[in-house]
Amino acid sequence: MEIRYPNGKIFKPYKAEKRLKNYEYGNRGMTLEEDLNESNEYYLANQIAVIHKKPTPIQIVNVDYPHRSKAVIKEAYFKTPSTTDYNGVYKGKYIDFEAKETKSKTSIPLQNFHAHQINHIKQVLACDGISFVIIRFSTTEEIFLLEGKYLLKFWERMENGGRKSIAKDEINHYGHHIPIGFQPRIDYLKIVDQIYY
Amino acid sequence: MEIRYPNGKIFKPYKAEKRLKNYEYGNRGMTLEEDLNESNEYYLANQIAVIHKKPTPIQIVNVDYPHRSKAVIKEAYFKTPSTTDYNGVYKGKYIDFEAKETKSKTSIPLQNFHAHQINHIKQVLACDGISFVIIRFSTTEEIFLLEGKYLLKFWERMENGGRKSIAKDEINHYGHHIPIGFQPRIDYLKIVDQIYY
Repeated sequence: MEIRYPNGKIFKPYKAEKRLKNYEYGNRGMTLEEDLNESNEYYLANQIAVIHKKPTPIQIVNVDYPHRSKAVIKEAYFKTPSTTDYNGVYKGKYIDFEAKETKSKTSIPLQNFHAHQINHIKQVLACDGISFVIIRFSTTEEIFLLEGKYLLKFWERMENGGRKSIAKDEINHYGHHIPIGFQPRIDYLKIVDQIYY
Repeated sequence: MEIRYPNGKIFKPYKAEKRLKNYEYGNRGMTLEEDLNESNEYYLANQIAVIHKKPTPIQIVNVDYPHRSKAVIKEAYFKTPSTTDYNGVYKGKYIDFEAKETKSKTSIPLQNFHAHQINHIKQVLACDGISFVIIRFSTTEEIFLLEGKYLLKFWERMENGGRKSIAKDEINHYGHHIPIGFQPRIDYLKIVDQIYY
């Protein structure tokens, strides 16, 4: 029997074995990044969206060639990323976001974000891209989507001498709660649909 | 000694000094990648588009911490990228492309592209993203934009036993010539405007 989503699209399970294993041992303890990667794989496999995490930028200093075909990087350093971590396409539009976790129950410290990421969000919004952050309160396992424009406002407040974090109450008010599901685990595009489409 | 990516592309570390030198002595001899990065910087600085080259994906095996604040990667390997190299946002829409150079005067060998990149292009098109390749014939310094849908057709022809390259004549016919300018050097968004907006 076909299983369908409320929008009529046919539900297609994928990688049954991997999922099964996860469920056997439970998937508690998965990080936000793992859950998002899995959600993005689901979107990709079902031709819903093409969204990838960008590779970590590395400054390569020294490379060895023990064999002609195999280069070994012998010395390299992590570079500070100049953008957010995730981007891609959904229904033709550009999607861009950053994901952050906090153990705090009451707020997300703004030091979780970097000035260059804030700048990148401004640039994306100036070009009419869809920009947001996904925030996970790990203690309560609550996940929220907060639009980039609000993050900018809270950042500005800090720069004007205000508080150095976004209160949970504010996230509740300005953000959108994303319930944790089965497939995909974090269906953030459902919220994106409500806000932008 | 030349350092090469797994696909044979020469690795060039980005160095500020080298850039300065390029400007002093004129920027002939710049690679397609350098020209595109410069064009993207121009688009970014003028709030026209936010398009970045993705970092090369690296598999990190061993990291040293000589000081608490400074991690040194001691062993790592180049991974095959699963997407194209460039993506970003222009007028709200998702832009995605790959850049390739060839020394041939008569064709671009399809071995310049990888199956996973072809697959990625299909996925982007399925989600209504704007997908293309920028091809530079380095001998004649001619640059063309070829829409992803045509690249897919030529790839399919090869898979059906046809020629393993795209003839220059075909690029001329199906592609769009991009004149080399001053700022930006490669104004590919002008072509994108004509095709998609």
